[in-house]
Amino acid sequence: MDLVPLKLVTIVAESLLEKKLVEEVKRLGAKGYTITPARGEGSRGIRSVDWEGQNIRLETIVSEEVALRILQKLQEEYFPHYAVIAYVENVEVVRGEKYV
Amino acid sequence: MDLVPLKLVTIVAESLLEKKLVEEVKRLGAKGYTITPARGEGSRGIRSVDWEGQNIRLETIVSEEVALRILQKLQEEYFPHYAVIAYVENVEVVRGEKYV
Amino acid sequence: MDLVPLKLVTIVAESLLEKKLVEEVKRLGAKGYTITPARGEGSRGIRSVDWEGQNIRLETIVSEEVALRILQKLQEEYFPHYAVIAYVENVEVVRGEKYV
Repeated sequence: MDLVPLKLVTIVAESLLEKKLVEEVKRLGAKGYTITPARGEGSRGIRSVDWEGQNIRLETIVSEEVALRILQKLQEEYFPHYAVIAYVENVEVVRGEKYV
Repeated sequence: MDLVPLKLVTIVAESLLEKKLVEEVKRLGAKGYTITPARGEGSRGIRSVDWEGQNIRLETIVSEEVALRILQKLQEEYFPHYAVIAYVENVEVVRGEKYV
Repeated sequence: MDLVPLKLVTIVAESLLEKKLVEEVKRLGAKGYTITPARGEGSRGIRSVDWEGQNIRLETIVSEEVALRILQKLQEEYFPHYAVIAYVENVEVVRGEKYV
């Protein structure tokens, strides 16, 4: 079986940002995404306010290049304004050619 | 503390497949699984149709051997017919003996 | 961009344990957490009973030291009494300084 090493990028954010984030990751090269409902609490006192209400957990499997593009974008345009968490993991994917 | 290196297999699929997938992973050696609700969009235009409605995100922690068996099965019998995503990650698990 | 290697700890448990687990991980050093709804089945016959009803999937990004503290605590005080799954993964995080 053909397992392809790729990057899994996970973004946790307010659900109001969903549409914008989906457009962003697709524009930056993601071919798909999965969203699960989430809620939580952030690292600064002020963020518990932001985090009230519903959050989303958006996952997308991408190449390393696209992963870095997405994280860069989040760092520049989202983190200064929104309560957003983003992290990247190594995954091995079946049918990896679909993701790049 | 005893941390055991194992594989975390994640499968995202239409929720109609849940029962079938759960039976499949258990038959192939998984001792348990976790399901979270999900939705998303896939890599081909045609898949956004398949992905409408509710999806599930099924996770199971297994040995490498069982992980490969599950992915092989998905590749042979699910990917040709259904909108399914599957990937595998390295995890370290407490009470690892429960999973193999 | 500054990606910091950290640990992602995932805990799956009965939702009745949510408040207790959140307090526990914060007390042990976690600066935040994300919760998604979940359900599933465990490795022992007896656990499928415990697992009926709603579960939660709690994720927290922490230093390796805090991750080990959390897993140790779970092992000592939760695993003997509750149906709990816990595992740890390597992640790379944007704005890693927020998590330690």
